[in-house]
Amino acid sequence: MTAPTAPDLLALDRAAQDLLFRAARTASTFTDEPVTDAQVAAIHDLIRYGPTAYNGQPLRVLLLRSPESRARLLPYVSSSNRAKTASAPLVAVLAADVDFHERLPELYPHRPQARDWLSDRAGRAEQARFSATLQIGYLLVGVRAAGLAAGPMAGFDAVGVTREFFPDGRHEALLLLNLGHPGPDAWAERLPRLSTGEVVWTL
Amino acid sequence: MTAPTAPDLLALDRAAQDLLFRAARTASTFTDEPVTDAQVAAIHDLIRYGPTAYNGQPLRVLLLRSPESRARLLPYVSSSNRAKTASAPLVAVLAADVDFHERLPELYPHRPQARDWLSDRAGRAEQARFSATLQIGYLLVGVRAAGLAAGPMAGFDAVGVTREFFPDGRHEALLLLNLGHPGPDAWAERLPRLSTGEVVWTL
Repeated sequence: MTAPTAPDLLALDRAAQDLLFRAARTASTFTDEPVTDAQVAAIHDLIRYGPTAYNGQPLRVLLLRSPESRARLLPYVSSSNRAKTASAPLVAVLAADVDFHERLPELYPHRPQARDWLSDRAGRAEQARFSATLQIGYLLVGVRAAGLAAGPMAGFDAVGVTREFFPDGRHEALLLLNLGHPGPDAWAERLPRLSTGEVVWTL
Repeated sequence: MTAPTAPDLLALDRAAQDLLFRAARTASTFTDEPVTDAQVAAIHDLIRYGPTAYNGQPLRVLLLRSPESRARLLPYVSSSNRAKTASAPLVAVLAADVDFHERLPELYPHRPQARDWLSDRAGRAEQARFSATLQIGYLLVGVRAAGLAAGPMAGFDAVGVTREFFPDGRHEALLLLNLGHPGPDAWAERLPRLSTGEVVWTL
């Protein structure tokens, strides 16, 4: 009798494991096939159930669909990310709503006073970034759940993008995301991953 | 002919959608059934493929298995989280390795100079928190992929836990996580979620 391998110990079936993690890759080229609003809505409808602190859900997703909006983004993107950002079928700016606490009486109704616990802007911005980043993790999984490839990019001027696209002062850009179907040579060999023994410790 | 609903637009099958997001809930009570090291390893073996900046993988998971380690944690947990933390079959401290850059020559071999771009500790700590938080998003999905319930808790003294469990000064505690099978009355009614129209905007 052989011991079960790691994939067998999961309740999630192997095809889904592959779709979301094992076979999924960060794409750097895309085909021309568009990403529709219906697909984006289906992704959000799935991942909005992921947990956030105070159920605050601070992630906001700005889709840059017009050529003008794409052109406004490109100067803030690092040179190594510019070509793929210019050619991806869809680019999104992922941001945190620092004033997410305004909705808490509705989103966290059993403790309406949570809004007041978050009256300090600096502490609230930290909470907003943390929960929105968790939600970006769910979103990257959701993009793959839709059969699409995600191209997250941290190489950009976040202060500049925040100023350019969120002049209201209540949002902070966290990450750029290309979405589409992978094109030719969309990725190189997979980079090494740390083993469980290097990452998981026990006391 | 009826238009496809959101779940039909995803490549991920409906059972997996339910397991990971739609039917999954944050648990606040657990049964006595243990969470094994093999289950934790299976979860990590899945989610380690999720993308991080520079492929840096800064998330570290400290499992508190001994009664002594659990007792050391409890004074730092908010009163509303203490009972479930004391009774969960497994509690983990999720932390960021601020010195993750030391491994980059191996993890990001095509740009070994990335290690030197991250020589400033404050900027590096921000990167470590960001990527580790993304990985926590993957981890929460992975816990559910294993058929377990996750109980993430942000209500704790993170500075105190960092000092207590990571005296090396290179790790920062980000979140506590209870793991197990849901017990009686493990959750109340699901809290409201924002609609796509409130979260996704288009330019």
